[in-house]
Amino acid sequence: MTGETKYRVCYGDTDQMGVVYYGHYPRLYEIGRTELIRSVGFPYKKVEDEGIFMPVRSVKIDYLKSAYYDDLLTIRTIIKDLPVVKFKIFTEIYNEKGELLNKGETVLGIMDSKTGRPTPAPRNFLDAISSLDS
Amino acid sequence: MTGETKYRVCYGDTDQMGVVYYGHYPRLYEIGRTELIRSVGFPYKKVEDEGIFMPVRSVKIDYLKSAYYDDLLTIRTIIKDLPVVKFKIFTEIYNEKGELLNKGETVLGIMDSKTGRPTPAPRNFLDAISSLDS
Amino acid sequence: MTGETKYRVCYGDTDQMGVVYYGHYPRLYEIGRTELIRSVGFPYKKVEDEGIFMPVRSVKIDYLKSAYYDDLLTIRTIIKDLPVVKFKIFTEIYNEKGELLNKGETVLGIMDSKTGRPTPAPRNFLDAISSLDS
Amino acid sequence: MTGETKYRVCYGDTDQMGVVYYGHYPRLYEIGRTELIRSVGFPYKKVEDEGIFMPVRSVKIDYLKSAYYDDLLTIRTIIKDLPVVKFKIFTEIYNEKGELLNKGETVLGIMDSKTGRPTPAPRNFLDAISSLDS
Repeated sequence: MTGETKYRVCYGDTDQMGVVYYGHYPRLYEIGRTELIRSVGFPYKKVEDEGIFMPVRSVKIDYLKSAYYDDLLTIRTIIKDLPVVKFKIFTEIYNEKGELLNKGETVLGIMDSKTGRPTPAPRNFLDAISSLDS
Repeated sequence: MTGETKYRVCYGDTDQMGVVYYGHYPRLYEIGRTELIRSVGFPYKKVEDEGIFMPVRSVKIDYLKSAYYDDLLTIRTIIKDLPVVKFKIFTEIYNEKGELLNKGETVLGIMDSKTGRPTPAPRNFLDAISSLDS
Repeated sequence: MTGETKYRVCYGDTDQMGVVYYGHYPRLYEIGRTELIRSVGFPYKKVEDEGIFMPVRSVKIDYLKSAYYDDLLTIRTIIKDLPVVKFKIFTEIYNEKGELLNKGETVLGIMDSKTGRPTPAPRNFLDAISSLDS
Repeated sequence: MTGETKYRVCYGDTDQMGVVYYGHYPRLYEIGRTELIRSVGFPYKKVEDEGIFMPVRSVKIDYLKSAYYDDLLTIRTIIKDLPVVKFKIFTEIYNEKGELLNKGETVLGIMDSKTGRPTPAPRNFLDAISSLDS
């Protein structure tokens, strides 16, 4: 279950080393997973409307090569297992030459917004994600 | 009515021109005005607790000189007139040499969070700001 | 001379008022003007390669209505006059309902990167921008 | 070898969940390690002036509890081993109640800025860090 989205590096993403600041990658990861679940007809906004929120529990990022100003990056987001009470998401970021620049894992919790407690992922959300399978 | 606060430029604030990215200044302005009203015993959090919120209506920024990585900036925040239904705040940013790098004006609305409508600034908030006068 | 580009609001763009943080708009303005000059075959990267850089001299922003999480914004960038030694750019941001949320003006300087001094805009850059005219 | 620095959460750090956006923590980690090495008389700027730069190779972050608007955070930065060609740094972030909100590890490479290749950490830098030992 994989989705891809494009991201154009802007000036505000760079730092004085002339590369994308390391602290901007979590935002790219967010954009990647948001577009993945949008592509199956289940935008994160709808997740929240169903009374679920998914706070980030952990993130792990490996910086392999630099991304530069004006690069058109490909954010590839990969789901290997359907979420139970945690949702593990893999991300890989490539430049236009197809070089892998960055990869990481994000773990989201699945919480009931009324009780503030962990809850299993809703059935229709799981069905939507499964539909990505190919 | 003037307050000053310090801000250390970090790597994430710079861009590939080697200077603080122009888009980070509104955040510095926010830090300046927050610390000013905190200094009179009326942190913005308390403003919100009183049922008031103050969305930004406009901002105007002049970029005179660059700020650099690791600069210890002085954010000077100036209130010339007590707010009625709008709150106009002036900001000046200096480096350690005392050079004026940046100056601007921010206008905040004053809104009732229940009605979502403009409201006069609360008396105790005005009193707190007036206490700055010297 | 007008160009439009789309921008999807992500979680990281919002603040606890539930709207796009006022400090993120300069970045949206940057994206808008970058895509405008890219569309005429003159990406800003090429500008820099020609020994020109264009630091922001001033920005003025009016916040009319809020932008929300997951909104697909349209950033409209307008050039009314060809730049001489300054480059004035107008920006308007709309939501999907076509409501004008935000508008502003940015003034860029045009500098020679070798001398660090103001310089007229290069002929081929002016020609490229003029080609937008319609 | 431990250092602490304070950080006040501003509006721009929060997201619409009402907490500090997960993507801002790498910046807090940067501030923590910068202040740690500044405290031993070896600001990162001086590191760069000596021809060394230290790009981030990996970061791992655990989000345990939320940080809120206006929280005065304590960023604790811990060095357990002197760097050889990599520099591993631990970070813990606490709120005013002393609750551990967030912890992580960052690995920096140590590079020669002329050759662009890994290099051992300079002797005087190691000496400075060792002086923290207590």
